[in-house]
Order: sequence, then structure tokens, then C-alpha cells
Amino acid sequence: MTGYMITFEGGEGAGKSTQAQRLYEAFERDGRKVLLTREPGGTKGAEAIRELLLFGGHSLSLRSEIMAHFAARCDHIDQVMKPALNQGYVIICDRYIDSTLAYQGYGLGKGDPQLLQYIQTLSNLVELQPNLTLMFEAPYDVMRARCHARQGRVDRYEQLDETFHYRVLDGFQQIMADCPDRCIPVNGHRDVDSVHQDVYELVSQKLFELK
Amino acid sequence: MTGYMITFEGGEGAGKSTQAQRLYEAFERDGRKVLLTREPGGTKGAEAIRELLLFGGHSLSLRSEIMAHFAARCDHIDQVMKPALNQGYVIICDRYIDSTLAYQGYGLGKGDPQLLQYIQTLSNLVELQPNLTLMFEAPYDVMRARCHARQGRVDRYEQLDETFHYRVLDGFQQIMADCPDRCIPVNGHRDVDSVHQDVYELVSQKLFELK
Repeated sequence: MTGYMITFEGGEGAGKSTQAQRLYEAFERDGRKVLLTREPGGTKGAEAIRELLLFGGHSLSLRSEIMAHFAARCDHIDQVMKPALNQGYVIICDRYIDSTLAYQGYGLGKGDPQLLQYIQTLSNLVELQPNLTLMFEAPYDVMRARCHARQGRVDRYEQLDETFHYRVLDGFQQIMADCPDRCIPVNGHRDVDSVHQDVYELVSQKLFELK
Repeated sequence: MTGYMITFEGGEGAGKSTQAQRLYEAFERDGRKVLLTREPGGTKGAEAIRELLLFGGHSLSLRSEIMAHFAARCDHIDQVMKPALNQGYVIICDRYIDSTLAYQGYGLGKGDPQLLQYIQTLSNLVELQPNLTLMFEAPYDVMRARCHARQGRVDRYEQLDETFHYRVLDGFQQIMADCPDRCIPVNGHRDVDSVHQDVYELVSQKLFELK
């Protein structure tokens, strides 16, 4: 595969989605072949699974929930991301495997080693690892305030309590510690333009180094 | 686990579901702790995934479709089957992993060894293998005629062409050859009572041998 895959990770309200959109627009202006996508979702089938997971009101077992996330991911990989990478696209993906690790593995699963291993096995099975992961960070209170200011539906993860969200954020920290070569922290607690400028320069430099 | 798990497998129209129901009723009359369930489905969440897979109209990649089946299965295992086995129940499950192997692995996937290995990895991951599998067999034309005579919705697998269904049936044969200790063929091309009598005696004998 000749493309390059970047994932944007972090808690809700850290600035991921805004920055993913901004980077996509900047790369489009630069004339790059770039694709912006998100998880859970990214294909019609995966969006249907996303809907079921986030708003379905069914209480799947945690192992089942994780596997359903990977089923959606697998469709996204097979039908969208792998073909795009084969055509040389830069992919900007808003959430990916690290979110499953953080939300289900560390958040809901409280870091149970057997569950983390289960996620790792599924991760190996889908066979697509990102080249670069930007980990968006902001103080918890700032992130919560941003979430509350949003319009729209509240999904089932956003409804969970504070201790859950702290475990998720700790999970992202653990992932950064485990994968220092792939993960770069981004301070999302600044104005949108400053964050964008950093992200744009950082990713552009990484892509330049590939040549 | 102190229970006993029996799966009923075979093509559509071979008599599985009728015989599963009959065996369940007979065991209830005998005063056994018995549970009748089915796949895909078996829990509310798994039924929602089943609906999406069989009637959703989304075209998931084959790897994704397989993983979604296993996600539903995982919920069924965690929330229904493992607890029932721990309480000593005999479980009669209408379709299970062999159906995924036959329909997705051999039918849609045409026996691609990599895909069969992928199913095997998922099968190991969910950690529940049946004690006994009854493989229902009948001539293809008989099975098709029975399917056509049924009322109700036609799912997406039933709509596929004859060559697909022959590959599925060959797949079930291959599974029997691979797992002779677990799988027993049942001739489903007889009157319902005769088949039931055979099934009842066969399973009762297996359960008696356990003691």
C-alpha cells in the first residue's frame, strides 16, 4: 500500500473532529489525494452497526460490543480504507482501534488484561494499522463543557459517569506510552487555528519525510 | 460447565428447526432442564444484528459480515448459553459456528483457506464449542421445495443461486469429515416422527453416557 493513514484519537471534546475536518480542507487545498472518514461508521453497513451500538438501546455483552465495533471497522477497512491506500490516498480517520481500546478496554472493561488481549487479537485480525496517531488532549472540564455546548443526540458513551471518562483518558495515556513511535500528543486546549497550524505542520513534515 | 450443548446444522429445509423444537418439547416432558435457542439471534441485541445481516440491505464485506455474525454469537454465548450451561442446562441451538463456516466460508467465500482460518480464529476467540452436532441432510430438491412451501420473509441467503447452496451443502460435508467425533449425520428425508424418534434416542443415549 502506498498511501498513509492518520488516526485522530482522544476523548469527546478534545478537538479531534474539528481538527480532522480542518486538516482535510487544508490538504485538499494543497492538491493532495486525501480522504476524511470516521469510526464507528465510514460505510453504509458500518453506519448501520454504529447506529445500533450508539443508539440501539440493546445491551450487548462487552465482548460482543467490541466485536461489533470491529465488524463495522472491518467493512470500513475492506470497502473504503484499503482501496484508498492502494490508490495512494492520505486517510484522516476520526477514531479507530485506539478508541476501542480506550472506551471498551480501559473504560467499560477497566483495563482487564484478558479483554485488552481480546482487542489485540481482533486488531491483528483486521490487518490495518495506522502510520500515525494524533492524540488530542485537553483538561477534562474543558472537554465536558465543549460536549455540553453541542447540539444533537447524546450517545450512550457520553451518558456514562465521570469515573468512566477518566478511565478512558487514562487509557489513551497508556496507549501513548505503549506506542511512542506511532502516537504524538496534541494539546487541544488552545484556539482552533493554533491547533490546526501545529497539526498541519506536523503531518506535512511526516509526509515529506516519506519521500 | 456442567451442561451440554447440541447444535442442529444443515441447509435450509433439511428439518433442523422442526426437529429442534420437537426434541425440546420431548426433553421438557422428560423433566430435563433444556433450553431451545437459535442463531443468528438468541438475545435482543443479537436479534438486532441478525435483522441487519439477513434483511438490512447493506452489503458488508465478507470479513465484516462474518465478524458481525460472531458479534451476535458472542452476545448469545455471554448472556444466554454460558449462564445456562453453568446451571446444567441442555442447550439445543438451531445453527451455530458450522453455519458460518458453511454459508460464509464455503458458500460465499468458496472455501478460501485464508477465510476459513479467519473464521477459525474467531471461533477460538468466542470460546464455546458444542458437545454434539447433528447434521441434517436431505436431497437438495426436497430442501428447496420445503423452503418454497414456507410462509414468511425470504432472507438474503435463501435468495442466492443454486451453485451457492450446493457449496454450502458441500461445506457441511467437509465439516463432518473434519470433525467426526462431534458431528453425526441425520437423514432428514423421512417423516417428521421417524426423524424425531432417531434424534431423541441418539441424544438421550449421549446424555446417558455422560453420567
